[in-house]
Amino acid sequence: MGKGRLEAFSDGVMAIIITIMVLELKVPHGAEMGALRPLIPIFLSYLLSFVNVGIYWNNHHHLLQAVRQVNGRTLWANLHLLFWLSLIPFATAWMGENFTNLPVALYGVVLFMAAIAYFILTHALISHHGQDSTLATAVGRDWKGKVSLLIYAVAIPLSFVKSWLGCALYVLVAITWLIPDRRIEKALRQ
Amino acid sequence: MGKGRLEAFSDGVMAIIITIMVLELKVPHGAEMGALRPLIPIFLSYLLSFVNVGIYWNNHHHLLQAVRQVNGRTLWANLHLLFWLSLIPFATAWMGENFTNLPVALYGVVLFMAAIAYFILTHALISHHGQDSTLATAVGRDWKGKVSLLIYAVAIPLSFVKSWLGCALYVLVAITWLIPDRRIEKALRQ
Amino acid sequence: MGKGRLEAFSDGVMAIIITIMVLELKVPHGAEMGALRPLIPIFLSYLLSFVNVGIYWNNHHHLLQAVRQVNGRTLWANLHLLFWLSLIPFATAWMGENFTNLPVALYGVVLFMAAIAYFILTHALISHHGQDSTLATAVGRDWKGKVSLLIYAVAIPLSFVKSWLGCALYVLVAITWLIPDRRIEKALRQ
Amino acid sequence: MGKGRLEAFSDGVMAIIITIMVLELKVPHGAEMGALRPLIPIFLSYLLSFVNVGIYWNNHHHLLQAVRQVNGRTLWANLHLLFWLSLIPFATAWMGENFTNLPVALYGVVLFMAAIAYFILTHALISHHGQDSTLATAVGRDWKGKVSLLIYAVAIPLSFVKSWLGCALYVLVAITWLIPDRRIEKALRQ
Repeated sequence: MGKGRLEAFSDGVMAIIITIMVLELKVPHGAEMGALRPLIPIFLSYLLSFVNVGIYWNNHHHLLQAVRQVNGRTLWANLHLLFWLSLIPFATAWMGENFTNLPVALYGVVLFMAAIAYFILTHALISHHGQDSTLATAVGRDWKGKVSLLIYAVAIPLSFVKSWLGCALYVLVAITWLIPDRRIEKALRQ
Repeated sequence: MGKGRLEAFSDGVMAIIITIMVLELKVPHGAEMGALRPLIPIFLSYLLSFVNVGIYWNNHHHLLQAVRQVNGRTLWANLHLLFWLSLIPFATAWMGENFTNLPVALYGVVLFMAAIAYFILTHALISHHGQDSTLATAVGRDWKGKVSLLIYAVAIPLSFVKSWLGCALYVLVAITWLIPDRRIEKALRQ
Repeated sequence: MGKGRLEAFSDGVMAIIITIMVLELKVPHGAEMGALRPLIPIFLSYLLSFVNVGIYWNNHHHLLQAVRQVNGRTLWANLHLLFWLSLIPFATAWMGENFTNLPVALYGVVLFMAAIAYFILTHALISHHGQDSTLATAVGRDWKGKVSLLIYAVAIPLSFVKSWLGCALYVLVAITWLIPDRRIEKALRQ
Repeated sequence: MGKGRLEAFSDGVMAIIITIMVLELKVPHGAEMGALRPLIPIFLSYLLSFVNVGIYWNNHHHLLQAVRQVNGRTLWANLHLLFWLSLIPFATAWMGENFTNLPVALYGVVLFMAAIAYFILTHALISHHGQDSTLATAVGRDWKGKVSLLIYAVAIPLSFVKSWLGCALYVLVAITWLIPDRRIEKALRQ
């Protein structure tokens, strides 16, 4: 089966996720500067989630470049990833309105589960293409993916100690992924 | 006529349906664990509907793989399917907030009508491609589709006896469809 | 310029319009049959608008089949059409909640303006492809489009006499368009 | 890397932005003409933003026509543009409900930042394709882009003197861009 519709559907879902998050930025009643102040944490949560969904889209785009075809199993692995991503707007809004232990931890749980789902998707695609495929070479030992998972696993309990500590670790992971993943570009060029 | 835009439009509508359902998970005012508790049935309804829309997307994707072209009649058969799918967010939200007889039955009615619409779409495509086409071979006698319809037809009145009984049958149908439909993959390979 | 993105963007906007209209079907608080009763006119408005947007998508799909390329002018003619279509959710919701003179008339104004915009788009495409193109032959004298415009023009003032009269005419136009427009399929086949 | 998904994702995000803005046109409770009056400034804001997003889509479409491939850097430059565009619905709604100094100025800030992001995207694409590419020739010295930035930079402080003055300048910029940018069409034809 061709990969075209899997890409199109994923693009659609991620485009909608990224855009409906902004609906949480409720229009304030007042028109003075003070009316914007309560929106600052919501805006910062939005920014972090925009970057995170952007990273997933970017990595998904790179991953699928190295893929030639998909099967039923990879369609479900992909839907599983989209399920966790679809919970980001909820987690973002809750953390944006209540920057306390539990909401910050839950945000981390959603990111952790999305990272697990991405890991499963990658391995479903590799097992379909073979261990000596371009894709397997490109992904390699996937240090970056595994370290991100580890940091999320540390950040979630830390959120119950200090909310900002957990959140700082989520920001740290996002920053490391902003640097684009050149493994797949390199492997494709060879 | 090419099938490209029918796929693109269907992907768009299904992507939006799957994503706007999550808007029903209203952000709670509190930040403690108890604030999440009333969201549990809404979350479970969302999960069931996510899986159901995912199944439709998956089957639609497989179905269209075996299709070479579409005509005016299939465009409308497809819009008819999208109409019933577009009512899933409403039915999901109502069932999520009121897990009682009528909302559970209505959820089943929407699933039943969507299954009927999928059946009509399949047969409109087969009659356009011919009874000896790859598509007709792949769909075959369509036992799985017909049994699903039957189970829904039983589940709807059962919802008025015990809500959880109707819902259990919807979950059962979803599980049988999670196992991907290999008929079309097989027929295409031949 | 290729027509691919014009199709993709139009598909996206029409898919979203068709899907956000369903958000007006607000989840009722009660769980008994009576709680659904106030939703009936809103549901019927939704159904009419779903069919109308479906007709536009269908016709747009047929129209673009006969098109080989687009220019800056047609991009704007298309955006102009999408602008009027984007007002359908508002007009639908207002008519659904208040089935009285003005809302019914406004619904007709939006349909009238969308029909005008479709007419402009068609003629922008024809003037780009030439009077002897497949497109020009397929569109022909466009009786159906012109009669629809005329009926809308009559229905709008009639809505101020009796709301249901205006609405009946909108339904009439929709029914005539449900029969797919074979002119373009015929012209393409030749 | 191919440019297909960058186009598809951008089309998706821009289609959603343009459509969710219309949700701010809240359905009035009354059904008489007076009930529509408070919606007039919201409608006019919507119209201006529809045109602005339409211009970005149009220019993005032209720009990508002249592009053959994209890299990691251009993916992020594009996401950066989409981030600022995603804030347009918020800025539109706030200005629509409060046509006073600060909201009008904020609307200008969002347009200014989007214009900066478009400038960065253009230059990321040019540096990837080379200074003697079709793209570089087509963009040329980009007077129109630079003058627009300058007008926004003037309009933002002017909004604090008279709101309508700032807004008049935003309308002026939009009008100059409605005239399609023939540079790229010309360069592609050569």
